Amino acid sequence: MDPGPLDAFVLDHRVKGMPGGLGELPLGRIGEQGWNILREDLPLPVAVLKESALAHNGDWMRRFLAASGALIAPHGKTTMSPQLFARQLADGAWAMTVATVHQLQVARDFGVGRIVLANQLVGRQAIRYVLSELRHDPGFDFYCLVDSEANVAALAAAAREMAVGRPVQLLLEGGYPGGRTGARSLAQALDVAHAVKMAEPYLALRGIEGFEGLFHGATAEETAGQVAGFLDFLVDIAVAAERERLFAPDRLILSAGGSAFYDLVVRRFREAGIGRDFLLLTRSGCYLTHDSVLYRDAFAALRHRSPEVDDIGRGLRPALEVWAYVQSRPEPEKALLTMGKRDVSYDELPVPLHWARPGDAVPRPLSEGHHVSGLNDQHCHMSLPAHSPLQVGDMVAFGISHPCLTFDKWQVICVVDDAYTVTSAIRTFF
Amino acid sequence: MDPGPLDAFVLDHRVKGMPGGLGELPLGRIGEQGWNILREDLPLPVAVLKESALAHNGDWMRRFLAASGALIAPHGKTTMSPQLFARQLADGAWAMTVATVHQLQVARDFGVGRIVLANQLVGRQAIRYVLSELRHDPGFDFYCLVDSEANVAALAAAAREMAVGRPVQLLLEGGYPGGRTGARSLAQALDVAHAVKMAEPYLALRGIEGFEGLFHGATAEETAGQVAGFLDFLVDIAVAAERERLFAPDRLILSAGGSAFYDLVVRRFREAGIGRDFLLLTRSGCYLTHDSVLYRDAFAALRHRSPEVDDIGRGLRPALEVWAYVQSRPEPEKALLTMGKRDVSYDELPVPLHWARPGDAVPRPLSEGHHVSGLNDQHCHMSLPAHSPLQVGDMVAFGISHPCLTFDKWQVICVVDDAYTVTSAIRTFF
Repeated sequence: MDPGPLDAFVLDHRVKGMPGGLGELPLGRIGEQGWNILREDLPLPVAVLKESALAHNGDWMRRFLAASGALIAPHGKTTMSPQLFARQLADGAWAMTVATVHQLQVARDFGVGRIVLANQLVGRQAIRYVLSELRHDPGFDFYCLVDSEANVAALAAAAREMAVGRPVQLLLEGGYPGGRTGARSLAQALDVAHAVKMAEPYLALRGIEGFEGLFHGATAEETAGQVAGFLDFLVDIAVAAERERLFAPDRLILSAGGSAFYDLVVRRFREAGIGRDFLLLTRSGCYLTHDSVLYRDAFAALRHRSPEVDDIGRGLRPALEVWAYVQSRPEPEKALLTMGKRDVSYDELPVPLHWARPGDAVPRPLSEGHHVSGLNDQHCHMSLPAHSPLQVGDMVAFGISHPCLTFDKWQVICVVDDAYTVTSAIRTFF
Repeated sequence: MDPGPLDAFVLDHRVKGMPGGLGELPLGRIGEQGWNILREDLPLPVAVLKESALAHNGDWMRRFLAASGALIAPHGKTTMSPQLFARQLADGAWAMTVATVHQLQVARDFGVGRIVLANQLVGRQAIRYVLSELRHDPGFDFYCLVDSEANVAALAAAAREMAVGRPVQLLLEGGYPGGRTGARSLAQALDVAHAVKMAEPYLALRGIEGFEGLFHGATAEETAGQVAGFLDFLVDIAVAAERERLFAPDRLILSAGGSAFYDLVVRRFREAGIGRDFLLLTRSGCYLTHDSVLYRDAFAALRHRSPEVDDIGRGLRPALEVWAYVQSRPEPEKALLTMGKRDVSYDELPVPLHWARPGDAVPRPLSEGHHVSGLNDQHCHMSLPAHSPLQVGDMVAFGISHPCLTFDKWQVICVVDDAYTVTSAIRTFF
């Protein structure tokens, strides 16, 4: 793939995070500006990615996969940044995963050759576009999920009508009661698999897929138990479908693994005992940037479950920060900052990391007692000790929770070195 | 202002909501395509604005203001769409309100002449940009809030240093304990007002401002009482500052009023008794699109409090819908749809309005019992009756709650007629 054309994308001050009055600046030349966050060269709020953490995390995942024998199709929905897709593919990713046909359109536009659409393919435009791409580009290696016989029928009819010339490759999705998509029972799953088999040569059943990331038990152990039970179900489907010879002859694919439980996935699938060779495909979207709340906790649980990951070196580091100004301190124990639900994920609140006063060359540590108590669209409510030094005009860096819902609030995110000097920038497509 | 240049903005299939394979289409020519949502000419999810509702709501607000004698500076942060700003200004808006300097940059870029920044102006880039605009464009009429003596000092110093040549116009913000920004007491407010007076001719105190939209009492009556008490406080500040001759000689401005309580604002401020003429400025951002949950309820409460609004005709109508496909129906009483936190506001969940099966020319009503039970990034969980006709590939329209946090999930939103044919599109800048 080639994200190079993005170097020519023109930044100006209509792009959030760019300084007022900025004329036309090609994105590829942003590193030449010498902009520094601490020196207030950019207006706040601004989101930044730390280059050193991105490099570390890419390296870590490469080592994890080498040690586990799994492949990865990172979920591109997290960043929706072709430049980061290119980085992940250069790091050895087998494919990119996407959630929607819009995301697939973006990935295709930048030349991603192998894509897993981690959903059923539904809707006239989505089906037409994908089948047209399959017909016109022999290099396009496409996979999508299936959990319904009605969808099998619709896809087969469309593929026949459009004379695609090769099968649409499907991964049968297993689910669980109360969960998201996916067949609830082995019988239901096998019915769908049989329907796919009947629709050859328009369709081909290439493997089994599931998403285990939404289990929430009362304890980490309980959650891990639920995940393990679900992975067993996916393996049961694979074994049964193989026994009934429902898979296409190509190499089988077993895929699961969001950003929280991929250690369990590789452990369970390696021992699947399906009776034929298969490709073990994980799909973490968040490993590259990690975070400071949700996936920090998930990674701590992963290390507890799978202490052997410490053998591959120091774990994932948060790469994403959002900086904001103190805008008002109307009460001794309350400050408002220039950051809100428009700038940062808010299913879990961001956490203040460190701060700087204009003129500081390095951030200062924050004492205990500073925390975010709420977010409005454009404001962050912070509780702080009465003796906190923070005053109007000071800058605070926040670690974020849930990278996916922070990325989508920025069309351009600056990449910084450890001194917070902007070295490049990435563009997102949401 | 002139949003005309946006007609030349080039759409392609990297823009969410545009069909796969779309080459380069100038936004101004989208109405010529004859695209229709029900005919599946666009991939879903897609957000649409109903032209008839926009026109009705603009008209309604014009009549409300005429009846009340107030002016409006609609909060541009809601839509961040220069085309909708132009519509609001053409409808008679006195100014546009913005929340951040980025939003101000966008408004300035499209030639908005009068802007209220409903926050303190903080940070090197923000201050530099605004003062530079004030120095270079005599037609730029700018107002911002102030609640801190430190900010007064910083602004005065910057205005002196940059030789702006005219005062920066400030509205003193009143707040309340536990609330957001703004002086907590009359004494605190007057200290800031005195500081502004001392900083003439670099600064000028032009009025008093407050935001009453965050009160939440146990009952609608209790909330209204809290709002009324806060409005009394703002009037107290105005009366005291006028008594002490702290305002600049130009016409005084009293401003409050988000999208929920503007009836109370105009009623209380009209009787303010400040002893001089003033301009009563409301700032609703959401009246134009309204919604199907949050502001529907707020408007019902407004009609209950202020039944005279029924004299000006039928009330506000929801203009914004998001359409999604049924992607999976893995259990009899559960469906998953192709819409998630990336596509729609989620501080309150969206509500299903009606549905269509491919081939339908008009939407069908949904029976009781269909409701959204949760949202993931890219999925909508819907509970439905076992006898619901919805199947994979059907389309469902959702009414949204909180327009601000739905607009910011779309860079382009199609405007449709009542038959869901696309007649134009607006661009947003988030």
